[in-house]
Amino acid sequence: MNYQLILRMVGRTLLLKSACLLLPLFTALYYGETILPFLYTIAIILVVAIPLSVLKSNSQFFAKEGFVIVASIWVLFCLFGSLPLYFSGHFNSYVDCLFEITSGFTTTGASILTDIEALPRGILLWRSFSSWLGGMGVLILTLAFLPNAGKRAHNIMQAESPGPVKNKFVPKTSSSSKILYSIYVILTVAEIVALCIAGMPAYDSIVHSFATICTGGFSIKNTSIGAYNSATFDTIISIFIVLSAINFSYYFLLVTKRVRSVLSSDELRTFIGILFVSITLITINLFVSSHDITQQGLGTTLRYVSFQVFSIASTTGFSTADFNLWPQFSRILLLILMVIGGCAGSTAGGIKVSRFLLLSRSISRDLKKLSHPRSLKVVKLDGKVVDDPTIERVLVFFACHATILAITCLIVSLDNFSFTTTVTAVFASIGNIGPGLDLVGPMGNYATFSDLSKIALSLCMLIGRLEIFPILILFMPSTWRNS
Amino acid sequence: MNYQLILRMVGRTLLLKSACLLLPLFTALYYGETILPFLYTIAIILVVAIPLSVLKSNSQFFAKEGFVIVASIWVLFCLFGSLPLYFSGHFNSYVDCLFEITSGFTTTGASILTDIEALPRGILLWRSFSSWLGGMGVLILTLAFLPNAGKRAHNIMQAESPGPVKNKFVPKTSSSSKILYSIYVILTVAEIVALCIAGMPAYDSIVHSFATICTGGFSIKNTSIGAYNSATFDTIISIFIVLSAINFSYYFLLVTKRVRSVLSSDELRTFIGILFVSITLITINLFVSSHDITQQGLGTTLRYVSFQVFSIASTTGFSTADFNLWPQFSRILLLILMVIGGCAGSTAGGIKVSRFLLLSRSISRDLKKLSHPRSLKVVKLDGKVVDDPTIERVLVFFACHATILAITCLIVSLDNFSFTTTVTAVFASIGNIGPGLDLVGPMGNYATFSDLSKIALSLCMLIGRLEIFPILILFMPSTWRNS
Repeated sequence: MNYQLILRMVGRTLLLKSACLLLPLFTALYYGETILPFLYTIAIILVVAIPLSVLKSNSQFFAKEGFVIVASIWVLFCLFGSLPLYFSGHFNSYVDCLFEITSGFTTTGASILTDIEALPRGILLWRSFSSWLGGMGVLILTLAFLPNAGKRAHNIMQAESPGPVKNKFVPKTSSSSKILYSIYVILTVAEIVALCIAGMPAYDSIVHSFATICTGGFSIKNTSIGAYNSATFDTIISIFIVLSAINFSYYFLLVTKRVRSVLSSDELRTFIGILFVSITLITINLFVSSHDITQQGLGTTLRYVSFQVFSIASTTGFSTADFNLWPQFSRILLLILMVIGGCAGSTAGGIKVSRFLLLSRSISRDLKKLSHPRSLKVVKLDGKVVDDPTIERVLVFFACHATILAITCLIVSLDNFSFTTTVTAVFASIGNIGPGLDLVGPMGNYATFSDLSKIALSLCMLIGRLEIFPILILFMPSTWRNS
Repeated sequence: MNYQLILRMVGRTLLLKSACLLLPLFTALYYGETILPFLYTIAIILVVAIPLSVLKSNSQFFAKEGFVIVASIWVLFCLFGSLPLYFSGHFNSYVDCLFEITSGFTTTGASILTDIEALPRGILLWRSFSSWLGGMGVLILTLAFLPNAGKRAHNIMQAESPGPVKNKFVPKTSSSSKILYSIYVILTVAEIVALCIAGMPAYDSIVHSFATICTGGFSIKNTSIGAYNSATFDTIISIFIVLSAINFSYYFLLVTKRVRSVLSSDELRTFIGILFVSITLITINLFVSSHDITQQGLGTTLRYVSFQVFSIASTTGFSTADFNLWPQFSRILLLILMVIGGCAGSTAGGIKVSRFLLLSRSISRDLKKLSHPRSLKVVKLDGKVVDDPTIERVLVFFACHATILAITCLIVSLDNFSFTTTVTAVFASIGNIGPGLDLVGPMGNYATFSDLSKIALSLCMLIGRLEIFPILILFMPSTWRNS
């Protein structure tokens, strides 16, 4: 293990992070709030990061160093990022701050706050901004700015990019990440402008746009987007939610006029199909069980249902209606959407649509093989053959996911909350969604959990956000053994 | 597809089934109850089966025929096996009878009966006897008695044997199944004798032994084994429950003095480890949360906890305490035990310990491969290398399991029962356990579900019992296409 290199890269990334703290600092200054929480944090980070960032090291860099760097940067970002919240004095304990910021960086959007609106604007901005930073992976951001990361970037990208199959638009990794990053910024600015034009206050627009494009879902209102009760806001946010859950490489393809490859994407078509079918089924379910919401007519029902479906399927977690009160079928369908998640290569969480596509195709291939042992079927995605090691990794990913779910459920169950609360809190954490059902429903929060559960759920968010393997590799003894 | 051969084999197996109905018929006669339900059923089966059993056919027989035969025999057994219940007039509808007998044949043990004790003894015996017949796979029974199945037996065994890796003790399949069948009968007789000596009435001993050795769990008491409140009965049943959840081939190895291969079995050691750890954790959990049961002292608590753990881990489903009222940690741990299930090659349901062993070992291999791309680790079980196709099939099995769980949850959720009831009912069905939590807890039953849910859950039991693939293959269009 090349410790010097790891520490130097961690140090440099932390320096970049301290620069990011200037945005909430200036916001606090603008609104006349105290800037001390941010100043203290920046000071602490500089003290730790400067000595690290000047460490000398050789450039020996392998896969395991990549995983360790990514995992430790995320863990440190959460540990240091929660300091402004802690210094603000608005939180009960450091664990609460850690939970809130981990939920931010991992774009989960789960909150322990019972009265969000009571918090200063600087802190709320940092909360949403942290999820925006997490959205595209802090490292890709780093890569775009640190050109000398160059050669090593590929290993880091592999540890961080969300999805089973890697896409590179252009040969150089740092150029690829610059393109991704530009798309990310353009989408964010577009949403801010759209919301401002529609009449949302500028501060609210910025914070909510940060929380949309990263599919995070932190709102500054206690009742989330529902607080505005505006069909226009709902529509604008819905559009950007869906755009953020789609593979970002499609935007690059669209710009370079490769429309056909976007339209022929299996994942995109499946994702849109899932959204359409879910909205239809839930609307029918609500009407059949004559739920209150349906008394406002089909149009309004569709508006609420589609917003909730978009928000959950994209793993954002904003809400305009309390789906916790919907009939059981709708609740369980939403839970399944949480597990599936968005498209690979987007900021969405969950297992990802393309993994499910590969999963269902390899199931169907294996069934055919059993009944026709001599058949030689291959699994394809977008017309290209997917090799067996990739499929096996998807299957192993799936198995890891289920195992971590079970273990975390056991830990959280020590709090003795209802079965539904326990299980859906873990689902909502590992899938980086935010709201679950019962106590952690869209109108609830994670305040009542014990510190142990909060730490377990935070770890679950990190595991989910980094697509499981990097965090697990961090805990494997073989990673630390010299071979 | 060789339809003639399939129909002939199905016909012959049905004839055997009608012979099995003589046992409950004579029981009913002995207790002076009406024998008409059994007579009607035997008559109907004979009318259908005799013409089928004399069909001429060539002996062309491939894997897909094997799967279709197994799946259709199980489906028909359930359809015809429920007739005595229907004719008895003690059930509300044919769907109820179908659910009850499917739950029997699949050794699930879930019941729609609210007052079991009100039923005639002949019907109750058929209910438990059906699960005993299901226990070892009706086909293995058939194979043992129909020597001319000879060559084709291998394909049928492959479709039916419970577990990821096949064991054959002796070269001829029919001899193997005779050995298995003898072990099965010996265990059953041993339990009957033990219970009788301990003072349980003969009828009760027989019925409960039928339900133990197949890990079914049908009791003739409304409060299951708890009704006797006897530490001796609990102990005897516990022993046989555990014996039934262990790979039956170990008994053959013990008889042929190959003790070392039994002791070195990874699966057996893991299974015993799981039981031990679960009992310890649940006992601690009950004491920490000062549950009522702990007021009876450590000894009694351990007795109740171990019985519930044995019963659930073996997927039997007998109960002596209402674990639905235990703290959340214990409930979720029991649910995880349900999913894991017993050992391969036993009558237990669930995913099986050996599959989980392969799963966890392939996860750890893949993690090592990610951090050390040039490592060449292989997955081993009992010291033998497991090849990649076997591992992939285990992973696909796991993915299928989760997918079917999700779909069935959606269907059952239409009844709008609680999240816990819905989800655990499906877990308890696909794992062939019986009791779940809430409404379907050990003191509850499946009576209130709609017909649609009962059919979906019955199908789920069949899918679980036949280890998923045969029933799915039955529904694949490619199975029915001529290639």
